[in-house]
Amino acid sequence: MILAADNLQITHPELAKALDEMNPAPIQSLVKNCITAGAQMIDINSGPLTREPERKMRFLVETVQSVTDVPLLLDTANPRALAAGLATAIHPPIINGFSMEPVKLEKILPLAKKYDTDIIGYLLYPHGQVPRGEVERMEIAVALFEAVQKVSLCPDRLIIDPIIAPVLWENGTLQDAGILNVIRRLPDLLGYPVRTIAGVSNLTTGRGNYEKKLLLEQAYLPMLAASGLSVALLNIFHAKTVQVAKACNALLNDPIFTWEGI
Amino acid sequence: MILAADNLQITHPELAKALDEMNPAPIQSLVKNCITAGAQMIDINSGPLTREPERKMRFLVETVQSVTDVPLLLDTANPRALAAGLATAIHPPIINGFSMEPVKLEKILPLAKKYDTDIIGYLLYPHGQVPRGEVERMEIAVALFEAVQKVSLCPDRLIIDPIIAPVLWENGTLQDAGILNVIRRLPDLLGYPVRTIAGVSNLTTGRGNYEKKLLLEQAYLPMLAASGLSVALLNIFHAKTVQVAKACNALLNDPIFTWEGI
Repeated sequence: MILAADNLQITHPELAKALDEMNPAPIQSLVKNCITAGAQMIDINSGPLTREPERKMRFLVETVQSVTDVPLLLDTANPRALAAGLATAIHPPIINGFSMEPVKLEKILPLAKKYDTDIIGYLLYPHGQVPRGEVERMEIAVALFEAVQKVSLCPDRLIIDPIIAPVLWENGTLQDAGILNVIRRLPDLLGYPVRTIAGVSNLTTGRGNYEKKLLLEQAYLPMLAASGLSVALLNIFHAKTVQVAKACNALLNDPIFTWEGI
Repeated sequence: MILAADNLQITHPELAKALDEMNPAPIQSLVKNCITAGAQMIDINSGPLTREPERKMRFLVETVQSVTDVPLLLDTANPRALAAGLATAIHPPIINGFSMEPVKLEKILPLAKKYDTDIIGYLLYPHGQVPRGEVERMEIAVALFEAVQKVSLCPDRLIIDPIIAPVLWENGTLQDAGILNVIRRLPDLLGYPVRTIAGVSNLTTGRGNYEKKLLLEQAYLPMLAASGLSVALLNIFHAKTVQVAKACNALLNDPIFTWEGI
Protein backbone atom coordinates (compact mmCIF):
# COMPACT_ATOMS: atom_id res chain seq x y z
CA MET A 1 0.00 0.00 0.00
CA ILE A 2 1.45 3.29 -1.17
CA LEU A 3 0.75 6.44 0.85
CA ALA A 4 -0.38 9.55 -1.00
CA ALA A 5 -0.71 12.88 0.85
CA ASP A 6 -4.04 14.68 0.50
CA ASN A 7 -2.65 17.76 2.24
CA LEU A 8 -2.06 20.02 -0.75
CA GLN A 9 -5.55 21.48 -1.04
CA ILE A 10 -5.90 24.90 -2.56
CA THR A 11 -9.04 25.52 -0.51
CA HIS A 12 -6.65 25.98 2.43
CA PRO A 13 -6.37 29.81 2.83
CA GLU A 14 -2.58 29.90 3.14
CA LEU A 15 -2.17 27.83 -0.02
CA ALA A 16 -4.84 29.81 -1.88
CA LYS A 17 -2.89 32.98 -1.07
CA ALA A 18 0.39 31.39 -2.22
CA LEU A 19 -1.24 30.42 -5.51
CA ASP A 20 -2.76 33.88 -6.00
CA GLU A 21 0.63 35.49 -5.43
CA MET A 22 2.52 32.77 -7.37
CA ASN A 23 4.64 32.39 -4.25
CA PRO A 24 6.15 28.88 -4.24
CA ALA A 25 7.62 28.93 -0.70
CA PRO A 26 4.55 27.90 1.37
CA ILE A 27 3.72 25.12 -1.10
CA GLN A 28 7.32 23.87 -1.21
CA SER A 29 7.46 23.87 2.56
CA LEU A 30 4.25 21.86 2.83
CA VAL A 31 5.39 19.34 0.24
CA LYS A 32 8.76 18.84 1.93
CA ASN A 33 6.96 18.19 5.21
CA CYS A 34 4.68 15.69 3.47
CA ILE A 35 7.66 13.77 2.09
CA THR A 36 9.35 13.77 5.50
CA ALA A 37 6.12 12.45 7.03
CA GLY A 38 6.10 9.50 4.64
CA ALA A 39 4.26 10.63 1.49
CA GLN A 40 5.12 8.53 -1.56
CA MET A 41 2.78 10.52 -3.81
CA ILE A 42 1.42 14.07 -3.65
CA ASP A 43 -2.18 14.85 -4.61
CA ILE A 44 -2.40 18.37 -6.04
CA ASN A 45 -5.99 19.27 -5.23
CA SER A 46 -6.23 22.52 -7.10
CA GLY A 47 -9.99 22.83 -7.20
CA PRO A 48 -11.60 24.14 -10.40
CA LEU A 49 -9.03 26.91 -11.13
CA THR A 50 -11.59 28.98 -13.00
CA ARG A 51 -9.19 31.87 -13.63
CA GLU A 52 -5.97 31.21 -15.54
CA PRO A 53 -6.19 27.42 -15.13
CA GLU A 54 -3.17 26.59 -17.30
CA ARG A 55 -0.83 29.10 -15.71
CA LYS A 56 -1.88 28.15 -12.17
CA MET A 57 -1.61 24.39 -12.67
CA ARG A 58 1.77 24.80 -14.34
CA PHE A 59 2.89 26.83 -11.34
CA LEU A 60 1.61 24.19 -8.92
CA VAL A 61 3.24 21.28 -10.74
CA GLU A 62 6.53 23.12 -11.18
CA THR A 63 6.53 24.17 -7.54
CA VAL A 64 5.94 20.64 -6.26
CA GLN A 65 8.47 19.18 -8.70
CA SER A 66 11.07 21.66 -7.51
CA VAL A 67 11.24 19.87 -4.15
CA THR A 68 10.33 16.23 -4.86
CA ASP A 69 10.21 13.69 -7.64
CA VAL A 70 7.48 11.44 -6.19
CA PRO A 71 4.52 10.86 -8.53
CA LEU A 72 1.81 13.52 -8.57
CA LEU A 73 -1.94 13.10 -8.61
CA LEU A 74 -3.55 15.93 -10.56
CA ASP A 75 -6.81 16.47 -8.76
CA THR A 76 -9.03 18.82 -10.73
CA ALA A 77 -12.16 18.59 -12.83
CA ASN A 78 -10.91 21.38 -15.10
CA PRO A 79 -9.66 19.79 -18.36
CA ARG A 80 -7.61 22.86 -19.28
CA ALA A 81 -5.79 22.84 -15.96
CA LEU A 82 -5.31 19.11 -16.23
CA ALA A 83 -3.83 19.27 -19.74
CA ALA A 84 -1.40 21.96 -18.60
CA GLY A 85 -0.40 19.88 -15.58
CA LEU A 86 0.10 16.78 -17.70
CA ALA A 87 2.30 18.69 -20.11
CA THR A 88 4.35 20.16 -17.26
CA ALA A 89 4.89 17.06 -15.13
CA ILE A 90 8.36 15.55 -15.51
CA HIS A 91 7.47 12.17 -14.02
CA PRO A 92 4.26 10.47 -15.23
CA PRO A 93 1.44 11.85 -13.08
CA ILE A 94 -1.92 10.27 -12.31
CA ILE A 95 -5.16 11.95 -13.35
CA ASN A 96 -7.52 12.22 -10.37
CA GLY A 97 -9.93 11.50 -11.91
CA PHE A 98 -12.95 10.71 -14.02
CA SER A 99 -16.37 9.15 -13.59
CA MET A 100 -19.26 8.14 -15.85
CA GLU A 101 -20.35 11.80 -15.88
CA PRO A 102 -20.62 12.66 -19.62
CA VAL A 103 -18.43 15.77 -19.40
CA LYS A 104 -15.68 13.75 -17.68
CA LEU A 105 -15.86 10.97 -20.26
CA GLU A 106 -15.61 13.56 -23.00
CA LYS A 107 -13.03 15.98 -21.60
CA ILE A 108 -10.98 14.18 -18.93
CA LEU A 109 -10.65 10.54 -19.99
CA PRO A 110 -9.16 11.34 -23.44
CA LEU A 111 -6.33 13.22 -21.70
CA ALA A 112 -5.18 9.94 -20.15
CA LYS A 113 -4.95 8.47 -23.63
CA LYS A 114 -3.25 11.56 -25.06
CA TYR A 115 -0.59 11.67 -22.31
CA ASP A 116 -0.58 7.87 -21.74
CA THR A 117 -1.03 8.25 -17.97
CA ASP A 118 -2.78 6.40 -15.19
CA ILE A 119 -6.25 7.69 -14.40
CA ILE A 120 -8.46 7.23 -11.37
CA GLY A 121 -12.06 6.21 -12.00
CA TYR A 122 -14.62 7.00 -9.30
CA LEU A 123 -17.36 4.54 -8.43
CA LEU A 124 -20.05 7.22 -8.78
CA TYR A 125 -23.20 7.43 -10.86
CA PRO A 126 -23.06 9.69 -13.95
CA HIS A 127 -24.71 12.52 -12.06
CA GLY A 128 -22.33 12.26 -9.09
CA GLN A 129 -24.45 10.32 -6.62
CA VAL A 130 -22.76 7.67 -4.52
CA PRO A 131 -24.03 4.13 -5.19
CA ARG A 132 -25.42 2.37 -2.13
CA GLY A 133 -24.48 -1.28 -2.56
CA GLU A 134 -21.66 -3.54 -3.61
CA VAL A 135 -23.44 -4.71 -6.75
CA GLU A 136 -24.00 -1.13 -7.92
CA ARG A 137 -20.32 -0.35 -7.30
CA MET A 138 -19.25 -3.40 -9.29
CA GLU A 139 -21.52 -2.37 -12.18
CA ILE A 140 -19.96 1.09 -12.27
CA ALA A 141 -16.46 -0.46 -12.18
CA VAL A 142 -17.35 -2.46 -15.28
CA ALA A 143 -18.70 0.70 -16.97
CA LEU A 144 -15.45 2.59 -16.19
CA PHE A 145 -13.42 -0.34 -17.51
CA GLU A 146 -15.43 -0.32 -20.76
CA ALA A 147 -15.11 3.46 -21.06
CA VAL A 148 -11.33 3.19 -20.77
CA GLN A 149 -11.24 0.57 -23.50
CA LYS A 150 -13.47 2.74 -25.70
CA VAL A 151 -10.80 5.44 -25.84
CA SER A 152 -8.17 2.71 -26.54
CA LEU A 153 -6.42 3.34 -23.24
CA CYS A 154 -4.78 0.23 -21.79
CA PRO A 155 -7.08 -1.02 -18.98
CA ASP A 156 -4.04 -1.29 -16.68
CA ARG A 157 -4.11 2.50 -16.64
CA LEU A 158 -7.39 2.51 -14.71
CA ILE A 159 -7.12 2.89 -10.93
CA ILE A 160 -10.47 2.49 -9.17
CA ASP A 161 -11.56 4.76 -6.31
CA PRO A 162 -14.54 3.20 -4.52
CA ILE A 163 -15.34 6.52 -2.74
CA ILE A 164 -15.34 5.87 0.99
CA ALA A 165 -18.60 6.94 2.63
CA PRO A 166 -18.47 9.18 5.70
CA VAL A 167 -19.46 7.08 8.71
CA LEU A 168 -21.98 9.75 9.65
CA TRP A 169 -23.96 9.14 6.48
CA GLU A 170 -27.02 6.95 6.75
CA ASN A 171 -25.66 3.41 6.20
CA GLY A 172 -22.17 4.91 5.94
CA THR A 173 -20.45 2.11 7.85
CA LEU A 174 -22.43 -0.51 5.95
CA GLN A 175 -21.22 1.02 2.69
CA ASP A 176 -17.64 1.14 3.94
CA ALA A 177 -17.79 -2.54 4.94
CA GLY A 178 -19.10 -3.30 1.44
CA ILE A 179 -16.28 -1.27 -0.12
CA LEU A 180 -13.79 -3.74 1.41
CA ASN A 181 -15.47 -6.53 -0.55
CA VAL A 182 -15.53 -4.43 -3.72
CA ILE A 183 -11.77 -3.76 -3.49
CA ARG A 184 -11.09 -7.46 -2.89
CA ARG A 185 -13.28 -8.62 -5.79
CA LEU A 186 -12.33 -6.10 -8.48
CA PRO A 187 -9.41 -8.15 -9.84
CA ASP A 188 -11.67 -11.17 -10.34
CA LEU A 189 -14.44 -9.01 -11.78
CA LEU A 190 -12.30 -7.20 -14.34
CA GLY A 191 -9.80 -9.99 -14.94
CA TYR A 192 -6.55 -8.21 -14.15
CA PRO A 193 -4.79 -6.98 -10.99
CA VAL A 194 -6.81 -3.75 -10.77
CA ARG A 195 -5.15 -1.05 -8.70
CA THR A 196 -7.33 0.84 -6.25
CA ILE A 197 -7.10 4.11 -4.32
CA ALA A 198 -9.22 5.38 -1.45
CA GLY A 199 -9.48 8.75 0.25
CA VAL A 200 -9.26 7.81 3.90
CA SER A 201 -10.09 11.31 5.15
CA ASN A 202 -13.61 10.90 3.72
CA LEU A 203 -14.36 8.35 6.42
CA THR A 204 -14.51 10.90 9.23
CA THR A 205 -15.89 13.92 7.35
CA GLY A 206 -18.24 15.95 9.53
CA ARG A 207 -18.60 16.39 13.24
CA GLY A 208 -16.75 14.23 15.73
CA ASN A 209 -13.97 14.20 18.30
CA TYR A 210 -10.52 14.50 16.71
CA GLU A 211 -8.97 11.58 18.65
CA LYS A 212 -11.90 9.32 17.82
CA LYS A 213 -11.63 10.27 14.16
CA LEU A 214 -7.97 9.25 14.19
CA LEU A 215 -8.83 5.99 15.91
CA LEU A 216 -11.47 5.23 13.30
CA GLU A 217 -9.13 5.79 10.36
CA GLN A 218 -6.47 3.69 12.12
CA ALA A 219 -9.01 0.87 12.38
CA TYR A 220 -10.29 1.17 8.81
CA LEU A 221 -6.93 1.53 7.07
CA PRO A 222 -5.74 -2.03 7.93
CA MET A 223 -9.07 -3.35 6.63
CA LEU A 224 -8.46 -1.54 3.34
CA ALA A 225 -4.88 -2.82 3.24
CA ALA A 226 -5.97 -6.42 3.84
CA SER A 227 -8.53 -6.06 1.05
CA GLY A 228 -5.68 -5.20 -1.30
CA LEU A 229 -5.88 -1.41 -1.53
CA SER A 230 -2.99 -0.12 -3.69
CA VAL A 231 -2.89 3.56 -2.68
CA ALA A 232 -4.17 5.20 0.50
CA LEU A 233 -4.82 8.92 0.02
CA LEU A 234 -4.69 10.43 3.48
CA ASN A 235 -3.63 13.27 5.75
CA ILE A 236 0.05 12.33 5.91
CA PHE A 237 0.53 14.39 9.07
CA HIS A 238 -1.53 11.83 11.00
CA ALA A 239 1.68 10.23 12.24
CA LYS A 240 0.11 7.31 14.04
CA THR A 241 -2.04 6.45 11.00
CA VAL A 242 1.12 6.45 8.88
CA GLN A 243 2.79 4.12 11.40
CA VAL A 244 -0.21 1.80 11.23
CA ALA A 245 0.05 1.81 7.43
CA LYS A 246 3.69 0.79 7.66
CA ALA A 247 2.78 -2.01 10.06
CA CYS A 248 0.14 -3.14 7.53
CA ASN A 249 2.78 -3.25 4.81
CA ALA A 250 5.14 -5.23 7.04
CA LEU A 251 2.33 -7.73 7.68
CA LEU A 252 1.05 -8.00 4.12
CA ASN A 253 3.83 -7.12 1.71
CA ASP A 254 7.26 -7.81 3.15
CA PRO A 255 8.45 -11.24 2.03
CA ILE A 256 10.67 -11.44 5.11
CA PHE A 257 9.42 -9.70 8.24
CA THR A 258 11.81 -7.47 10.13
CA TRP A 259 11.03 -5.04 12.91
CA GLU A 260 13.09 -2.47 11.05
CA GLY A 261 10.32 -2.26 8.42
CA ILE A 262 7.96 -0.63 10.90
CA MET B 1 -15.96 -9.06 17.69
CA ILE B 2 -15.97 -10.03 21.34
CA LEU B 3 -12.89 -9.32 23.46
CA ALA B 4 -11.53 -12.10 25.69
CA ALA B 5 -8.71 -11.40 28.14
CA ASP B 6 -5.70 -13.71 27.95
CA ASN B 7 -4.23 -12.20 31.12
CA LEU B 8 -5.11 -14.92 33.62
CA GLN B 9 -2.11 -17.18 33.05
CA ILE B 10 -0.99 -19.36 35.91
CA THR B 11 2.57 -19.28 34.57
CA HIS B 12 2.66 -15.72 35.97
CA PRO B 13 4.55 -16.05 39.32
CA GLU B 14 2.12 -13.95 41.35
CA LEU B 15 -0.83 -15.99 40.13
CA ALA B 16 1.03 -19.29 40.56
CA LYS B 17 1.64 -18.31 44.18
CA ALA B 18 -2.01 -17.35 44.69
CA LEU B 19 -3.09 -20.72 43.30
CA ASP B 20 -0.59 -22.60 45.48
CA GLU B 21 -1.86 -20.80 48.56
CA MET B 22 -5.50 -20.93 47.43
CA ASN B 23 -5.55 -17.19 47.95
CA PRO B 24 -8.31 -15.70 45.79
CA ALA B 25 -7.47 -11.99 46.26
CA PRO B 26 -4.74 -11.53 43.57
CA ILE B 27 -6.83 -13.43 41.01
CA GLN B 28 -9.99 -11.52 41.85
CA SER B 29 -8.11 -8.27 41.59
CA LEU B 30 -6.71 -9.19 38.16
CA VAL B 31 -10.11 -10.30 36.86
CA LYS B 32 -11.80 -7.10 38.07
CA ASN B 33 -9.16 -5.07 36.25
CA CYS B 34 -9.71 -7.15 33.11
CA ILE B 35 -13.44 -6.44 33.18
CA THR B 36 -12.83 -2.72 33.75
CA ALA B 37 -10.43 -2.74 30.80
CA GLY B 38 -13.12 -4.15 28.51
CA ALA B 39 -12.94 -7.95 28.80
CA GLN B 40 -16.17 -9.66 27.74
CA MET B 41 -14.75 -13.14 28.40
CA ILE B 42 -11.97 -14.42 30.69
CA ASP B 43 -9.59 -17.16 29.55
CA ILE B 44 -8.46 -19.22 32.54
CA ASN B 45 -5.09 -20.47 31.35
CA SER B 46 -4.32 -22.87 34.15
CA GLY B 47 -1.60 -24.88 32.45
CA PRO B 48 -1.53 -28.64 33.00
CA LEU B 49 -2.34 -28.57 36.77
CA THR B 50 -0.53 -31.85 37.35
CA ARG B 51 -1.11 -31.82 41.11
CA GLU B 52 -4.70 -31.70 42.43
CA PRO B 53 -6.16 -30.67 39.06
CA GLU B 54 -9.81 -30.84 40.15
CA ARG B 55 -9.37 -28.88 43.35
CA LYS B 56 -7.27 -26.21 41.68
CA MET B 57 -9.54 -25.71 38.68
CA ARG B 58 -12.58 -25.53 40.96
CA PHE B 59 -10.80 -22.88 43.00
CA LEU B 60 -9.92 -20.91 39.86
CA VAL B 61 -13.43 -21.03 38.41
CA GLU B 62 -15.06 -20.17 41.73
CA THR B 63 -12.63 -17.32 42.30
CA VAL B 64 -13.26 -15.78 38.87
CA GLN B 65 -17.02 -16.29 39.19
CA SER B 66 -16.99 -14.53 42.53
CA VAL B 67 -16.23 -11.23 40.81
CA THR B 68 -17.75 -11.53 37.32
CA ASP B 69 -20.38 -13.41 35.36
CA VAL B 70 -18.82 -13.04 31.90
CA PRO B 71 -18.27 -16.34 30.06
CA LEU B 72 -15.10 -18.27 30.90
CA LEU B 73 -12.72 -20.05 28.56
CA LEU B 74 -11.24 -23.09 30.29
CA ASP B 75 -7.75 -23.26 28.87
CA THR B 76 -6.09 -26.53 29.88
CA ALA B 77 -5.13 -29.78 28.22
CA ASN B 78 -5.83 -31.68 31.46
CA PRO B 79 -9.18 -33.48 31.08
CA ARG B 80 -9.61 -33.93 34.85
CA ALA B 81 -9.13 -30.20 35.48
CA LEU B 82 -11.43 -29.42 32.59
CA ALA B 83 -14.22 -31.70 33.84
CA ALA B 84 -14.01 -30.11 37.28
CA GLY B 85 -14.14 -26.63 35.77
CA LEU B 86 -17.12 -27.50 33.58
CA ALA B 87 -18.98 -28.87 36.60
CA THR B 88 -18.19 -25.75 38.64
CA ALA B 89 -18.97 -23.04 36.11
CA ILE B 90 -22.32 -21.36 36.69
CA HIS B 91 -22.57 -19.79 33.21
CA PRO B 92 -21.80 -22.03 30.21
CA PRO B 93 -18.03 -21.92 29.69
CA ILE B 94 -16.07 -22.58 26.51
CA ILE B 95 -13.53 -25.40 26.33
CA ASN B 96 -10.19 -24.08 25.05
CA GLY B 97 -9.69 -26.44 23.35
CA PHE B 98 -9.06 -29.53 21.27
CA SER B 99 -7.21 -30.51 18.11
CA MET B 100 -6.88 -33.61 15.95
CA GLU B 101 -4.35 -34.94 18.47
CA PRO B 102 -5.71 -38.42 19.41
CA VAL B 103 -5.61 -37.81 23.19
CA LYS B 104 -7.60 -34.58 22.75
CA LEU B 105 -10.18 -36.27 20.54
CA GLU B 106 -10.55 -39.03 23.12
CA LYS B 107 -10.42 -37.08 26.38
CA ILE B 108 -11.32 -33.43 25.68
CA LEU B 109 -13.88 -33.40 22.88
CA PRO B 110 -16.33 -35.76 24.65
CA LEU B 111 -16.48 -33.30 27.56
CA ALA B 112 -18.07 -30.73 25.25
CA LYS B 113 -20.78 -33.26 24.46
CA LYS B 114 -21.22 -34.27 28.10
CA TYR B 115 -21.56 -30.67 29.34
CA ASP B 116 -23.11 -29.38 26.07
CA THR B 117 -20.66 -26.51 25.80
CA ASP B 118 -18.87 -24.61 23.07
CA ILE B 119 -15.42 -25.93 22.25
CA ILE B 120 -12.51 -24.35 20.44
CA GLY B 121 -10.83 -26.44 17.73
CA TYR B 122 -7.24 -25.57 16.79
CA LEU B 123 -6.08 -25.66 13.19
CA LEU B 124 -3.08 -27.84 14.07
CA TYR B 125 -1.87 -31.20 12.81
CA PRO B 126 -2.49 -34.21 15.08
CA HIS B 127 1.04 -34.00 16.43
CA GLY B 128 0.83 -30.30 17.19
CA GLN B 129 2.63 -28.82 14.18
CA VAL B 130 1.25 -25.67 12.64
CA PRO B 131 0.06 -26.11 9.04
CA ARG B 132 1.75 -23.82 6.54
CA GLY B 133 -0.88 -22.96 3.99
CA GLU B 134 -4.50 -21.98 3.64
CA VAL B 135 -5.49 -25.26 2.02
CA GLU B 136 -3.97 -27.27 4.86
CA ARG B 137 -5.82 -25.13 7.40
CA MET B 138 -9.10 -25.64 5.55
CA GLU B 139 -8.54 -29.41 5.51
CA ILE B 140 -7.99 -29.45 9.26
CA ALA B 141 -11.11 -27.33 9.78
CA VAL B 142 -13.11 -29.98 7.92
CA ALA B 143 -11.52 -32.72 10.04
CA LEU B 144 -12.44 -30.85 13.27
CA PHE B 145 -15.98 -30.36 11.96
CA GLU B 146 -16.28 -34.09 11.26
CA ALA B 147 -14.81 -34.99 14.66
CA VAL B 148 -17.41 -32.82 16.38
CA GLN B 149 -20.19 -34.55 14.47
CA LYS B 150 -18.74 -37.97 15.34
CA VAL B 151 -19.36 -37.34 19.05
CA SER B 152 -22.86 -36.06 18.16
CA LEU B 153 -22.06 -32.56 19.31
CA CYS B 154 -23.97 -29.88 17.40
CA PRO B 155 -21.49 -28.36 14.88
CA ASP B 156 -22.55 -24.87 16.04
CA ARG B 157 -20.60 -25.67 19.19
CA LEU B 158 -17.31 -25.65 17.29
CA ILE B 159 -15.32 -22.41 17.42
CA ILE B 160 -12.27 -22.49 15.14
CA ASP B 161 -8.89 -21.07 16.24
CA PRO B 162 -6.64 -20.70 13.18
CA ILE B 163 -3.53 -20.28 15.41
CA ILE B 164 -1.89 -16.98 14.51
CA ALA B 165 1.77 -17.43 13.55
CA PRO B 166 4.39 -15.25 15.22
CA VAL B 167 5.64 -12.72 12.65
CA LEU B 168 9.20 -13.73 13.50
CA TRP B 169 8.60 -17.27 12.23
CA GLU B 170 9.79 -18.07 8.74
CA ASN B 171 6.84 -17.14 6.51
CA GLY B 172 5.01 -15.95 9.64
CA THR B 173 3.45 -12.90 8.00
CA LEU B 174 2.54 -14.92 4.92
CA GLN B 175 0.73 -17.40 7.14
CA ASP B 176 -1.04 -14.61 9.01
CA ALA B 177 -2.21 -13.07 5.74
CA GLY B 178 -3.51 -16.52 4.74
CA ILE B 179 -5.31 -16.87 8.06
CA LEU B 180 -7.43 -13.84 7.15
CA ASN B 181 -8.67 -15.72 4.09
CA VAL B 182 -9.26 -18.88 6.13
CA ILE B 183 -11.42 -16.98 8.64
CA ARG B 184 -13.39 -15.37 5.81
CA ARG B 185 -13.97 -18.63 3.95
CA LEU B 186 -14.81 -20.99 6.83
CA PRO B 187 -18.56 -20.26 6.77
CA ASP B 188 -18.72 -21.16 3.07
CA LEU B 189 -16.50 -24.19 3.57
CA LEU B 190 -18.46 -25.68 6.46
CA GLY B 191 -21.87 -24.37 5.46
CA TYR B 192 -22.84 -22.51 8.61
CA PRO B 193 -21.82 -19.23 10.29
CA VAL B 194 -18.71 -20.73 11.95
CA ARG B 195 -17.45 -18.73 14.90
CA THR B 196 -13.72 -18.11 15.13
CA ILE B 197 -11.28 -17.06 17.83
CA ALA B 198 -7.66 -15.94 17.54
CA GLY B 199 -4.94 -15.36 20.10
CA VAL B 200 -3.64 -11.95 19.07
CA SER B 201 -0.67 -12.04 21.48
CA ASN B 202 0.82 -14.90 19.41
CA LEU B 203 1.51 -12.44 16.61
CA THR B 204 4.33 -10.68 18.43
CA THR B 205 5.79 -13.58 20.44
CA GLY B 206 9.56 -13.31 20.73
CA ARG B 207 11.97 -10.45 20.57
CA GLY B 208 10.93 -6.97 19.48
CA ASN B 209 10.32 -3.43 20.65
CA TYR B 210 7.22 -3.14 22.86
CA GLU B 211 5.75 -0.13 21.04
CA LYS B 212 6.24 -1.79 17.66
CA LYS B 213 4.60 -4.95 18.94
CA LEU B 214 1.57 -2.92 20.00
CA LEU B 215 1.48 -1.21 16.63
CA LEU B 216 1.58 -4.55 14.85
CA GLU B 217 -1.32 -6.00 16.82
CA GLN B 218 -3.27 -2.76 16.29
CA ALA B 219 -2.76 -3.19 12.53
CA TYR B 220 -3.59 -6.92 12.45
CA LEU B 221 -6.67 -6.80 14.68
CA PRO B 222 -8.78 -4.74 12.22
CA MET B 223 -7.80 -7.19 9.47
CA LEU B 224 -9.05 -10.06 11.63
CA ALA B 225 -12.22 -8.12 12.43
CA ALA B 226 -12.92 -7.39 8.77
CA SER B 227 -12.44 -11.08 7.99
CA GLY B 228 -15.23 -11.85 10.43
CA LEU B 229 -13.35 -12.95 13.56
CA SER B 230 -15.85 -13.62 16.36
CA VAL B 231 -13.61 -13.50 19.43
CA ALA B 232 -10.24 -11.77 19.86
CA LEU B 233 -8.22 -13.28 22.71
CA LEU B 234 -5.74 -10.60 23.73
CA ASN B 235 -3.91 -8.77 26.47
CA ILE B 236 -6.85 -6.64 27.59
CA PHE B 237 -4.50 -4.17 29.30
CA HIS B 238 -3.30 -3.00 25.86
CA ALA B 239 -5.68 -0.05 26.10
CA LYS B 240 -5.07 1.32 22.63
CA THR B 241 -5.60 -2.12 21.06
CA VAL B 242 -8.91 -2.36 22.91
CA GLN B 243 -9.89 1.08 21.58
CA VAL B 244 -9.03 -0.04 18.06
CA ALA B 245 -11.19 -3.14 18.57
CA LYS B 246 -14.11 -0.94 19.60
CA ALA B 247 -13.57 1.23 16.52
CA CYS B 248 -13.63 -1.96 14.42
CA ASN B 249 -16.94 -2.95 15.95
CA ALA B 250 -18.38 0.52 15.32
CA LEU B 251 -17.31 0.21 11.66
CA LEU B 252 -18.43 -3.36 11.10
CA ASN B 253 -21.21 -4.23 13.51
CA ASP B 254 -23.17 -1.20 14.62
CA PRO B 255 -26.25 -0.84 12.44
CA ILE B 256 -26.28 2.89 13.17
CA PHE B 257 -22.91 4.57 13.66
CA THR B 258 -22.49 6.87 16.63
CA TRP B 259 -19.29 8.33 18.02
CA GLU B 260 -20.46 7.22 21.46
CA GLY B 261 -19.80 3.59 20.44
CA ILE B 262 -16.05 4.20 20.33
